[in-house]
Amino acid sequence: MSQKLERLKTLLAEVADLNHAASVLGWDQQVNMPPGGHEARGQQLATLGKIAQEKFISDEIGKLIEDLEGEFAGADPASDEAALIRVAARNYDKARRVPPEFVAEQAVVTSRAFEAWMEAKGKSDFSIFQPHLEKVVELVKRYISFFPPADHPYDILLDDYEPGMKTADVQAIFDALRPKQVELIQAIASAKQVKDDFLFRKYNEKKLNDFGVDVITKFGYDWNRGRQDRAPHPFATTFSVNDVRITTRFEPDNPLAMLFSTMHESGHAMYEQGVNPAYERTILMGGASLAIHESQSRLWENLVGRSLPFWEHFFPVFKKTFPSQLDGVGVKAFHRAVNKVEPSLIRVNADEATYNLHIMLRLELEIAMVEGKVSLKELPEIWNAKMREYLGVTPPNDAKGVLQDVHWSYGSIGYFSTYALGNLISAQLWEKINRDIKNLDDQIRKGNFGELLAWLRTNIHRHGQKFEPQVLVERVTGSKIAAEPYVRYLTKKYSEIYGL
Amino acid sequence: MSQKLERLKTLLAEVADLNHAASVLGWDQQVNMPPGGHEARGQQLATLGKIAQEKFISDEIGKLIEDLEGEFAGADPASDEAALIRVAARNYDKARRVPPEFVAEQAVVTSRAFEAWMEAKGKSDFSIFQPHLEKVVELVKRYISFFPPADHPYDILLDDYEPGMKTADVQAIFDALRPKQVELIQAIASAKQVKDDFLFRKYNEKKLNDFGVDVITKFGYDWNRGRQDRAPHPFATTFSVNDVRITTRFEPDNPLAMLFSTMHESGHAMYEQGVNPAYERTILMGGASLAIHESQSRLWENLVGRSLPFWEHFFPVFKKTFPSQLDGVGVKAFHRAVNKVEPSLIRVNADEATYNLHIMLRLELEIAMVEGKVSLKELPEIWNAKMREYLGVTPPNDAKGVLQDVHWSYGSIGYFSTYALGNLISAQLWEKINRDIKNLDDQIRKGNFGELLAWLRTNIHRHGQKFEPQVLVERVTGSKIAAEPYVRYLTKKYSEIYGL
Repeated sequence: MSQKLERLKTLLAEVADLNHAASVLGWDQQVNMPPGGHEARGQQLATLGKIAQEKFISDEIGKLIEDLEGEFAGADPASDEAALIRVAARNYDKARRVPPEFVAEQAVVTSRAFEAWMEAKGKSDFSIFQPHLEKVVELVKRYISFFPPADHPYDILLDDYEPGMKTADVQAIFDALRPKQVELIQAIASAKQVKDDFLFRKYNEKKLNDFGVDVITKFGYDWNRGRQDRAPHPFATTFSVNDVRITTRFEPDNPLAMLFSTMHESGHAMYEQGVNPAYERTILMGGASLAIHESQSRLWENLVGRSLPFWEHFFPVFKKTFPSQLDGVGVKAFHRAVNKVEPSLIRVNADEATYNLHIMLRLELEIAMVEGKVSLKELPEIWNAKMREYLGVTPPNDAKGVLQDVHWSYGSIGYFSTYALGNLISAQLWEKINRDIKNLDDQIRKGNFGELLAWLRTNIHRHGQKFEPQVLVERVTGSKIAAEPYVRYLTKKYSEIYGL
Repeated sequence: MSQKLERLKTLLAEVADLNHAASVLGWDQQVNMPPGGHEARGQQLATLGKIAQEKFISDEIGKLIEDLEGEFAGADPASDEAALIRVAARNYDKARRVPPEFVAEQAVVTSRAFEAWMEAKGKSDFSIFQPHLEKVVELVKRYISFFPPADHPYDILLDDYEPGMKTADVQAIFDALRPKQVELIQAIASAKQVKDDFLFRKYNEKKLNDFGVDVITKFGYDWNRGRQDRAPHPFATTFSVNDVRITTRFEPDNPLAMLFSTMHESGHAMYEQGVNPAYERTILMGGASLAIHESQSRLWENLVGRSLPFWEHFFPVFKKTFPSQLDGVGVKAFHRAVNKVEPSLIRVNADEATYNLHIMLRLELEIAMVEGKVSLKELPEIWNAKMREYLGVTPPNDAKGVLQDVHWSYGSIGYFSTYALGNLISAQLWEKINRDIKNLDDQIRKGNFGELLAWLRTNIHRHGQKFEPQVLVERVTGSKIAAEPYVRYLTKKYSEIYGL
């Protein structure tokens, strides 16, 4: 192998080790850390982040990338070597463009914005958060200014989460999707409603947890290379291809959320467990993009976990586990209940039919903020108007409206659309999977997920970050990211459930 | 403050962050990590160690230390600034003397030696380990050669664990101690033996664990700045003055070991929790030496935890927790049982009366190895002869003899005596504490440990690494480390228990 490539890999492996060490510290912070540990942990994470950044943007790495781009100019772009150099070059260029002082300033501004958001949400008063959001938007605009002009300034932000994706592409996809989703919701609203009161009875936390563990064990989550713990917010995190952990939580008001979030996180984790082991400690580790990642979590949570075949397999045991809660409930009624559609105020609780509309609203507001076309003072009003328009519900206050998500306080503008794109990709993959695995429903009905996971491993997981999301989706399904498969999926599913 | 000192502290804080991050990764490896994670974790730890070392031995730090030694030449040696510069200079000098290639070679040799030791111990065959031990001893000699000649070559090794301590000092202390301990053991051997069968009945793991938690909570272990988990081997580890964790384990064959090891580890942890918070992220964090550390763990485990006043407080609840196991057992019989003396083969299971003899044997062998005065082939024979001489027992095989400890396979030669020194110091402190706190026994009998902990905080804990161990002990007790207080303590205790 090229000596220069070998050297680049050695240097990037160190950076990967530092980043993974930081992930361990972050996981521990969420899962184990005693309250006293916070301040020191913040400093440790800051130091690891600073050193990883310094090591990554070194002149030596820049020179190696430059030389290697020449050396591998004629290489197959789908080769590991070409992909590694491409991703390294891309990330290096981004990292070098952003001055360290800006990163430091951003840390201060967003840390204060987060505090203000906490207070504003607690008091349900957007005016507390507004001046901080002004500063966040100002920072975001400065961030954009470090990069060469794009078709749209928002492209710069989106590209950090979805390499190669354009704002215009997302808008076109969402424009095709929006009327179909609104139409579907309206049709559902006039249909006979679904009964789901039995989902909100008292469920034993441990039994639910154990059931979730059994489910994802059958899915193929590898416990030899992972573990599950409790944390205030469910997440998946990666320390190595061979150590990918998930967390879960129990919400007494919404007990089954634990089960679906476990399936969701296992989807993220199985993706990372399935990356080509040869990518360990290289820049190709991890998922291709947030949307591709979300396609994996949503696929296991929704396409599998809310399907009738899935519950035909699991419901008998589930009912035996919770006989009093599910007294008189059959598998079909249960399946309908876990798929109940109800336009609601809060994104994270939204069902499959309404979720994407929450995202579209946010994307529109983010683009308007970046374009400077909205006065932040009016944000709550605009939010509420859009909620009425898309979902027919009006937030009673800021806490349940414009203040519900933490993302903007972190400075994460450009992030939300990846959730909706993930939903779309999951349905696109699902159509292709069902063409390739003819009897998939039967397999699921028998609790066999091996062939499904193997398909995902081969077509998605193993590639890690080798392909950009649009390239990967087109490679696998024959089309770029599109709305139609998801619309077909929702229409079929809800037509059956609601007799549309 | 001096600008240079400020700069040195900033640089050393980064190194501290890296080392603490490595401690988090090490803790996770013992406590949580799934089996698959081992290889990547090893690489992450190696990278963190390498970067911490590179950052520490930088020319900039060397120059700052040199300048500051001049700038603070007239400062009070007991000031924080002078101590910080002294400890930094000391550690810097040591780190710079050892070539990175040597460190790398050492890692390879000891990793293989550890594997060989595992196999040798499993097969109880010293000849498997012998060639690796030869290499370890060879490395140790080369390590010594990097330093200026000392009074004795073993001083170089000892100094890494006990700053400022000399081999001759330890030998003099042990020479005073050995005949007294042997005499005491012989007297006990001819006395009426103590009954302790009830300690080895079946005890419920969770109840024992909860009891241990209650005990160390009363001691003053701060759960807001710590936590306890299960691990294959009990240990304490520090990520910050405000995050000091301990682990414990349950041994079905020796259930009460869990309780005493919990007290032991809490002693280490309370020490680190009690260090001056101003030392956070400085080179003065942590304990003064391994012996001082061990004095704290042994004080809580033995001087407190095996005392009659302690059990007069805790036994009623303990007996209520385990009524059938302790049926017919009174507090005095129980106190006698947990203090039973029985010369045995294995150091880690040894009682207070015999423990130090295990250490003396090891020190003598280590010094002989460093001096080249022993053929390693004969090590098992020499070991067994000394066991007979000191303890009157003969190991039936290598596994229960010369192969029982892991330390030599790690290259840790110079370490063992710190265990015995810790015992001695604990008794020295105990005499002083009882002069300062007249009614300490009464306080313990009432379950009040606040004044004791406050004394340790003020006299030992808060100083961190500010004083060398001999300086600290003399500052606090008026004498250097000595054998007499421990002999007095043992003699009094066992005279009562065995009616000598």
